[in-house]
Amino acid sequence: MDKILRIDIGAEGGPKVTITGLGEYAGFGGRGMTSAIVSKEVPPLCHPLGPENKLVIAPGLLSGSASAMSGRISVGCKSPLTGTIKESNAGGQPAQVLARLGYAAIVLEGKPTDDTIYKVYINKDGVKISPANELKLLPNYDLVAKMKEQYGDRIACISIGPVGEMKMNVASVACTDMEIRPTRHAGRGGVGAVMGAKGVKVIVLDDTGMPMRTPANLEKFKDANKRFVDGLMKHPVTGQALPAYGTNVLTNIISEAGGYPTYNFKEGSFAGASKISGEVEAELEKQRGGNPTHGCHRGCVIRCSGIFHDKDGHYLTKQPEYETVWAHGGNCGIDDIDKIAMIDYLDDNYGIDTIEMGATIALAMEAGLAKFGDADAAINLVKEVGKGTYLGRILGAGAEITGKVFGLEKVPVVKGQALPAYDPRAVKGIGVTYATSTMGADHTAGYAVATNILKVGGFVDPLKPEGQIELSRNLQIATAAIDSTGMCIFIAFALLDQPETFQALLDLLNAFYGWDLTAEGVMDYGKKILTMERDFNLRAGFTKEHDRLPRFFYRDKLPPHQVTFDIKDEDLDKVFNW
Amino acid sequence: MDKILRIDIGAEGGPKVTITGLGEYAGFGGRGMTSAIVSKEVPPLCHPLGPENKLVIAPGLLSGSASAMSGRISVGCKSPLTGTIKESNAGGQPAQVLARLGYAAIVLEGKPTDDTIYKVYINKDGVKISPANELKLLPNYDLVAKMKEQYGDRIACISIGPVGEMKMNVASVACTDMEIRPTRHAGRGGVGAVMGAKGVKVIVLDDTGMPMRTPANLEKFKDANKRFVDGLMKHPVTGQALPAYGTNVLTNIISEAGGYPTYNFKEGSFAGASKISGEVEAELEKQRGGNPTHGCHRGCVIRCSGIFHDKDGHYLTKQPEYETVWAHGGNCGIDDIDKIAMIDYLDDNYGIDTIEMGATIALAMEAGLAKFGDADAAINLVKEVGKGTYLGRILGAGAEITGKVFGLEKVPVVKGQALPAYDPRAVKGIGVTYATSTMGADHTAGYAVATNILKVGGFVDPLKPEGQIELSRNLQIATAAIDSTGMCIFIAFALLDQPETFQALLDLLNAFYGWDLTAEGVMDYGKKILTMERDFNLRAGFTKEHDRLPRFFYRDKLPPHQVTFDIKDEDLDKVFNW
Repeated sequence: MDKILRIDIGAEGGPKVTITGLGEYAGFGGRGMTSAIVSKEVPPLCHPLGPENKLVIAPGLLSGSASAMSGRISVGCKSPLTGTIKESNAGGQPAQVLARLGYAAIVLEGKPTDDTIYKVYINKDGVKISPANELKLLPNYDLVAKMKEQYGDRIACISIGPVGEMKMNVASVACTDMEIRPTRHAGRGGVGAVMGAKGVKVIVLDDTGMPMRTPANLEKFKDANKRFVDGLMKHPVTGQALPAYGTNVLTNIISEAGGYPTYNFKEGSFAGASKISGEVEAELEKQRGGNPTHGCHRGCVIRCSGIFHDKDGHYLTKQPEYETVWAHGGNCGIDDIDKIAMIDYLDDNYGIDTIEMGATIALAMEAGLAKFGDADAAINLVKEVGKGTYLGRILGAGAEITGKVFGLEKVPVVKGQALPAYDPRAVKGIGVTYATSTMGADHTAGYAVATNILKVGGFVDPLKPEGQIELSRNLQIATAAIDSTGMCIFIAFALLDQPETFQALLDLLNAFYGWDLTAEGVMDYGKKILTMERDFNLRAGFTKEHDRLPRFFYRDKLPPHQVTFDIKDEDLDKVFNW
Repeated sequence: MDKILRIDIGAEGGPKVTITGLGEYAGFGGRGMTSAIVSKEVPPLCHPLGPENKLVIAPGLLSGSASAMSGRISVGCKSPLTGTIKESNAGGQPAQVLARLGYAAIVLEGKPTDDTIYKVYINKDGVKISPANELKLLPNYDLVAKMKEQYGDRIACISIGPVGEMKMNVASVACTDMEIRPTRHAGRGGVGAVMGAKGVKVIVLDDTGMPMRTPANLEKFKDANKRFVDGLMKHPVTGQALPAYGTNVLTNIISEAGGYPTYNFKEGSFAGASKISGEVEAELEKQRGGNPTHGCHRGCVIRCSGIFHDKDGHYLTKQPEYETVWAHGGNCGIDDIDKIAMIDYLDDNYGIDTIEMGATIALAMEAGLAKFGDADAAINLVKEVGKGTYLGRILGAGAEITGKVFGLEKVPVVKGQALPAYDPRAVKGIGVTYATSTMGADHTAGYAVATNILKVGGFVDPLKPEGQIELSRNLQIATAAIDSTGMCIFIAFALLDQPETFQALLDLLNAFYGWDLTAEGVMDYGKKILTMERDFNLRAGFTKEHDRLPRFFYRDKLPPHQVTFDIKDEDLDKVFNW
């Protein structure tokens, strides 16, 4: 993994491939790599869909190795949704395959000279780029099926659906899972629109003939990996709850905690929660021949994913995640898990971020386009997006723009990105993360829910302002580092509670690279990444005034706890004082 | 003019009227008044359509007096289009009438508790607010006709059309002219959407029984006014060009100078310019029984407006202004003046900013929704906005959002507001104003075209970067002051070239108020207003990074001069160093 592949899509005479060493980017992986390249090479005031933006795709530092959990891939750029720097990451197979092919990053640069779309094929023999207009507007499932026909079943794909081609802000970048289905998405921030603007429909990866990446010290590495896996298995979240019920185990928990945004953030508990919970999902998956415990990539031992079958026992979609179920469920007043699963499938197929989409549909409901709770109407709205009708293009531009187009005031976004599945008034730590993250409202940037609600890594009362700044700060720093390793962020549950598991991760990195990274070094690494990201954002015109929640969170009380977001501005401004 | 009228639209039990003295706002008028109130009272991070925003309507310092040219009214708020502070001003009768009624400002506050819309009637006896749901979605012409039926023909109206009610970003606030037609608009920045969000459809003013405002020193005032009028009459722009051809005298001039944005800012000259010029307009107006020389308010001596009749000799609209003719004309490749006049009528009737609308239609053409040059298609697009269809709501959200919805890169906006009728690459002084104005791209904020092209106030070569910063700085300061007097900005042509006419304006103010304002004092007053506005914007999160043009102006050369915008960022940052 010592090469960077650059594709200048608008080069004279057609797309031009350049392969270089890592140079100044050596030591970076995943989010560290994408943010380093974007921060250094992309002019912060450029138009996200213009020739100066770059789309950077990078496996993590441990991707492609025998390390457990190392299958996350980062997709970075200047975001068309937020205007900030953006890193969105996904599971699935591409991280492992791309890393084994030796690439630490793919950088898509420039702008197509016409409306040709391209297919990129990468294997052990090199890189081939070819016009692929026959793939235009294909949804992800059909696209991936065609790629399998053409390139066999040892491939992994990174692709966009029609929504990415249409350059909508909700567009995701899809990654195939172990069954070569396009179910794992770098969803947030419109990274799919940037891939669309670069005219690249799909990157097909085949690592046949490439060995697993070998650590500097194999024995130490094996030993560390064993301790790491043992740690994950013994923690109740990563060893029990997530494998059994997936992330959607949270629906009942968050709704009971009063922090489940319902009816477009009007209430904090959803009466229909129990009908769309992870427990229900898992039971249906068992009954119908699906699978509630399934990994999204080789080497995953938590296996929080699953396979969701429809009522007739046919594959419908992967097990919808908690945030997806919330976005299309409680937030829209919908309590029909089958219909939510159908929307999950549609989102994946069109190439749509489920969180942004669900938040936007709730706003459409607010604007009177459909009634809260009307699942069929919600399905139709998503189809409008897939078709790119005028209404679809409004919704496909995301929550903030939909709010503006329909003249709404209560629009739950920070830096243009919709808030995910935890109300910041009742889970204040995550509110701090939403407000201050370099990425816009993003729960994964510093998942304070762990400590606020799950009591992982200690306990900070979710309803009180005290301690939230420090909590979010530490999590944001740690997350930036973990997002660079290729590790799934869910390892953090075990890391936060079990120092020995954190040590095992350090040992993995040190054994692989021959480093002597300490816990402090990891935090320094995270700070370094956040600093690069914040520097980009500053140069893009973002100030502390953008590190705020929308006013209604400070004003309107959330039932049942009747709380507002009461963390002071001056405290929010201390998150990055370290 | 010693009262401020506040209407709390969402008060318990219905809208509540409070009338106070000027207090700390004494000495402010027009833009000075609106910006002082907004800057002090509106939380900069509030949602523009939420309860915390305020819509401030203020006549100028000399409005309602016998002074010539004093009929401008300012409408201010936090703008839903730009997110900045906003002052948009208009001619017509309301400034004079409101001032004679004694109100230095109307402040609409709060938020309606339901979807009732209100009518406000103000005469010598006081203020009456009544529900007026029967007026819902009425276009401006029908609305004003109804008000005349009800209140007689001595009224002046301030109103919104359906587009303001629908809270679209292109929504204007309409003011009636001397014929009680809704032809003069505070167009820019979506001020009509804020009036819509306050639930106020129309403010009807009747100054019957109220005397003209009397100056502190009547003789001095009369003498100053005579010198002022003489000065305006003897200057070639205000005494000849504007009366004869209106502002549209600029079409040929700017196109010949290569600074006329054509086909969405792709070229700098328009082949069809001569077919839509002011000369053609004036000739048609004469032939058809219209009138090419007509004032928009009592006391106007420049009379740059006019009355435009259709081919059958019936009133169609007021004489379309240069920026309107450009926006719907050359910028969309349209060279049919009758169809442009039809769009002007539609814009006025629906309550739409013609500049934002034309810029947006050009983007729709860029996106393939219509062909450049297709006037009938353009008319239909404006009708979509008036009807509030999904497509209409996209376009009604303005150029920036339309660009985002359709995935376009070359979107000519600054701070979310569309650039007006002068290409900043070929008229660099106005480019500086677009970039740095507190209002987003706004030619009226510092009309460097005067000196770049018309050689008024000296000459600064429009194609060279030298001297543009100083030019824009001085004009922005002077304009902020003039916008506070109630004076039409067109007086500036004479003021810039004739020191004695500038002195006459000072004498007018001093005689009226008993002040001893000097030229320096006027500039200090302008600086004070700009400082308040910039302070608001800073607190709203705007930095020097927002004082930039879109990247393509720095990159793509504009024919025929093949120029880019080459004023350095660090020089732009010096505009407000005084």
